[in-house]
Amino acid sequence: MTAIDERTITDVALEQMSATPNPRLREIMDCLVRHLHAFAREADLTPEEWLEGIKFLTAVGQACTPYRQEFILLSDTLGLSSLINTLHDRRSVEVGTKTSLLGPFYRQGAPQKKLGESIASPGDGAEICIYGRIVNLAGKPIPNASIEIWQSDDHGFYDLQKHDPSQMDLRGWFHADAEGRYSLRTVRPLGYLIPLDGPVGDMIRAQRRHGFRPAHIHFLVGAPGCRELVTALYLRNDDHINSDTVFGVTDSLITETKVNDPSSPFPSLPSIRFDFQLGAATAREESGRVGADPSQIVKTARVSH
Amino acid sequence: MTAIDERTITDVALEQMSATPNPRLREIMDCLVRHLHAFAREADLTPEEWLEGIKFLTAVGQACTPYRQEFILLSDTLGLSSLINTLHDRRSVEVGTKTSLLGPFYRQGAPQKKLGESIASPGDGAEICIYGRIVNLAGKPIPNASIEIWQSDDHGFYDLQKHDPSQMDLRGWFHADAEGRYSLRTVRPLGYLIPLDGPVGDMIRAQRRHGFRPAHIHFLVGAPGCRELVTALYLRNDDHINSDTVFGVTDSLITETKVNDPSSPFPSLPSIRFDFQLGAATAREESGRVGADPSQIVKTARVSH
Repeated sequence: MTAIDERTITDVALEQMSATPNPRLREIMDCLVRHLHAFAREADLTPEEWLEGIKFLTAVGQACTPYRQEFILLSDTLGLSSLINTLHDRRSVEVGTKTSLLGPFYRQGAPQKKLGESIASPGDGAEICIYGRIVNLAGKPIPNASIEIWQSDDHGFYDLQKHDPSQMDLRGWFHADAEGRYSLRTVRPLGYLIPLDGPVGDMIRAQRRHGFRPAHIHFLVGAPGCRELVTALYLRNDDHINSDTVFGVTDSLITETKVNDPSSPFPSLPSIRFDFQLGAATAREESGRVGADPSQIVKTARVSH
Repeated sequence: MTAIDERTITDVALEQMSATPNPRLREIMDCLVRHLHAFAREADLTPEEWLEGIKFLTAVGQACTPYRQEFILLSDTLGLSSLINTLHDRRSVEVGTKTSLLGPFYRQGAPQKKLGESIASPGDGAEICIYGRIVNLAGKPIPNASIEIWQSDDHGFYDLQKHDPSQMDLRGWFHADAEGRYSLRTVRPLGYLIPLDGPVGDMIRAQRRHGFRPAHIHFLVGAPGCRELVTALYLRNDDHINSDTVFGVTDSLITETKVNDPSSPFPSLPSIRFDFQLGAATAREESGRVGADPSQIVKTARVSH
């Protein structure tokens, strides 16, 4: 028997988990216990503080419903989700355009549209155009790539948050042409507050954070043999572009609309040009594709909304 | 704007939390985010694994009821609760007998008994005696100290787990005499399985752990001016004495029954002699006492059962 103290407890716990047959589970739990214990030691956590933590995590779990995933929101607001995305990018054989958060508003079964069509309904806001190409890392076009888009309206609301959530709005998917070109019309989205009526909202207020996400447009871009890309474009002029509450913004995903852009297919509309670069897929990534069989990431979306 | 990558994300997140007005909350969250991110980086967590973690934590939160605290059980089985206790001991001005887990079965309002009385009812099991002294760190008796005891029966069940949970059994409290002596009769408890029908049970099985706690008897010992002691005595011959699923056992809390002990007040019964040493209380510990106003630790008990 080992005398348990603040140092030995970690090894004693790891020893008890050492017969875990799944080697990856063993590795993850070993790593988790070491870092969890290191956190408690460094913070010199008291029983009262520990109990506050227990109550908070319990409240987060109990705020989850089939339509709300408060633990994903917690992960988002602690920067963990964004970190998981950057690790995912780094593991890939070829990265291309950076990953950004899928967020809780993805839905399967969005309507297919023709290139140049609008995904918006009357009243959604001021029209803009988004166009560009889908290319590989050498800049070579990827013909017939699929590109799916979803976003909030000019008041910061997704269709799922409005009147009749069964009606899809501001979402759709397109096939790029044989030269990898895509173009579509939509409206300028507005940034919005993350849901602040649960325990994560209490945390955000206690930390004096504003709780806003800057205006953005989500994309899911894919083609056979390519790594499926979950990303978002952000609008430069948003007040919260440098302080996204969920850390989704990165430099290379910030765009702006240009008026009178002669290369836009709709030069009269404010236009965003963005070329999506898809890396090659590993075998594992290939099998996890949304188009074929919904990937884990997309399952996240379903869990989280 | 900083380009977010697996290194910069941590500083970006800390920066956003840096306006937290409560300095201790800021310190804890800063420490938490650094260790959480270090865990994700070291484990090189994939989106699929992250999602499994989200689902697990959600299930843990949703398994909590007013009568069950699955997050405390998770903390216990990861060795965190035991670590929090050792940190609590180390912070004290004087430690004395080591702290052990309070566990989920503490109840307020247990009956007061006279020295030498039994806390057991007919059918609870084979009778034993526990006796000794309550002393300070110099070994000087603490007159009239209070000593509360609760335990399982010889089948491993607490009163709360049986027939009519409103009936208290195998619990009670005593006043030591003017020389700090206490003695009582009870039954030999049996070890038991932690609740394995929830997500923590899934984890324990996936780790091929047996899930048992060795036989033990809980104590809450207090006196004015002394640090209140939450501890437990363990029985040496238990099969799981070296592998407690919640890491409560430490060398100095292992005892054994002795037959024909001439100094026992009940020499005909197998007897355990244990002297509880209470350190001096800090002002904060003094005000958090159970006897006066239920301490946070005891609130834990109420949350967890």
